[in-house]
Amino acid sequence: MEFQIAFNDYLNTINAYLHRMFDDKTGSTYDAMKYSLYAGGKRIRPMITMACCDALGGDKEVALCFGSALEMIHTYSLIHDDLPCMDNDELRRGKPTNHIVFGEHMAVLAGDALLNYACESIVGADLKISPEAKIKALEILYSASGAEGMIGGQVMDIRAEEESISADELVILHNKKTGALINAAASLGAVASGKDKDLFYNYSSSLGLAFQIRDDILDVESDTETFGKPVKSDEKNNKTTYVSLYGIDGAKEMLRIETEKAISSLEFLGDCGKFLTDLAYYLLERKN
Amino acid sequence: MEFQIAFNDYLNTINAYLHRMFDDKTGSTYDAMKYSLYAGGKRIRPMITMACCDALGGDKEVALCFGSALEMIHTYSLIHDDLPCMDNDELRRGKPTNHIVFGEHMAVLAGDALLNYACESIVGADLKISPEAKIKALEILYSASGAEGMIGGQVMDIRAEEESISADELVILHNKKTGALINAAASLGAVASGKDKDLFYNYSSSLGLAFQIRDDILDVESDTETFGKPVKSDEKNNKTTYVSLYGIDGAKEMLRIETEKAISSLEFLGDCGKFLTDLAYYLLERKN
Repeated sequence: MEFQIAFNDYLNTINAYLHRMFDDKTGSTYDAMKYSLYAGGKRIRPMITMACCDALGGDKEVALCFGSALEMIHTYSLIHDDLPCMDNDELRRGKPTNHIVFGEHMAVLAGDALLNYACESIVGADLKISPEAKIKALEILYSASGAEGMIGGQVMDIRAEEESISADELVILHNKKTGALINAAASLGAVASGKDKDLFYNYSSSLGLAFQIRDDILDVESDTETFGKPVKSDEKNNKTTYVSLYGIDGAKEMLRIETEKAISSLEFLGDCGKFLTDLAYYLLERKN
Repeated sequence: MEFQIAFNDYLNTINAYLHRMFDDKTGSTYDAMKYSLYAGGKRIRPMITMACCDALGGDKEVALCFGSALEMIHTYSLIHDDLPCMDNDELRRGKPTNHIVFGEHMAVLAGDALLNYACESIVGADLKISPEAKIKALEILYSASGAEGMIGGQVMDIRAEEESISADELVILHNKKTGALINAAASLGAVASGKDKDLFYNYSSSLGLAFQIRDDILDVESDTETFGKPVKSDEKNNKTTYVSLYGIDGAKEMLRIETEKAISSLEFLGDCGKFLTDLAYYLLERKN
């Protein structure tokens, strides 16, 4: 109950920030950007940034700025991943995907503009931190989302639909595609509070892996209405997943182990680690 | 002759920097990025950055870093503009466009990765400047390339193919689509040498407009082999251009006037403005 209140509080704070940033911006580029940015989502990444920063007693406004920039990058990646030339998905978070509503050309440009705006929003923010800290945040964010991180993971992912990949390659793929941004989320929270960027590395690494395993399980066990996107798509696309490699029970066991690892890495925080612990349990059981 | 030597010197310096940055990077994302980044081009934007910095006696390494990041953004915009869902071009700088060689999905991702890398290359660079100056450079660069700048211009450009636009709208379109990055190039050169970012504003504004008018003229008067991309495409796509609005002679007169305006704005530099003056004349007469 306490967790749910804190969760909603973070969620509302993040959504309010994004609205404050974009509500007064008009024109067709912004319309397409806002459609996907406002489409809901759990805001897990900025929430991790804020919660890591709060656990260390850091400045909430800084974490909110860094985390929201990360959410813009996450959102752009979903818009581009859904394009006909990529995963060709027509449904995302229970709504028609960006290119279905605005056309392919606008979906490409809205994605570009969000990636671009993430940088603008950090460099232009009026925050009580040093320029060095902003540079550090941009370094974490853009190395996580670039060719060595998320984009590299998406390239591997597309190849994984054409040919089956090994268990080791699957780990690398998800480390890049999903894990990089979740690690960045935690690093940004640490940097926002003036601490070492790797302080939450064990937590976020296990959480990122658990997140992906849960996704693979939901693709098999959920339904489209609950999941908010088409289910059974991995099997249809012949994708190598944690379920296809280890079976549904094996995947569930891995998920449990990674969740425990994430939680036990938080011991150094004492009581301040409560929300992050509960968040790991929440993600373990999430339905969408 | 002296100009041509200096021009080639800048060109070689910029190309060498880009190769130093990417040659040792392997994998399919980088292959697609490098294909377009190494495809030649006149490197006008980074050249403006370097020449503005040199005219003020600034640090060449800083200008090279800033200008090359700008060139990455320019290159990503060409890759995305050429996509089938945008201008659907198959030829660029005399070579097959990125999506023709690597497929649409890779062209989208390679473009994304270049936009992303432009930020990485500045934040990660070991330069003799303050973190404030890096933040300033990122602010100039990403506001020029974002929804209010280049991307906004591309959105207008796509609409201009569907409906004819007025002379005023055409100026706004090009101010965003072409002008924003050329203004940014000059601003980055000023900032690289520790001076006010608007020092070259009149020069780069006139140069950007002249550049676009010349492009419209070449589309009518050149041939595909010389121009490096299909000619007569504006007429085919029913595009509003400076030639369609003012006729070929009217466009040539405008081009001459803007070139003169650019040059006369350089008086404050004395002899140090020689290369930038010659560059304006070079662009006036360019064949591709």
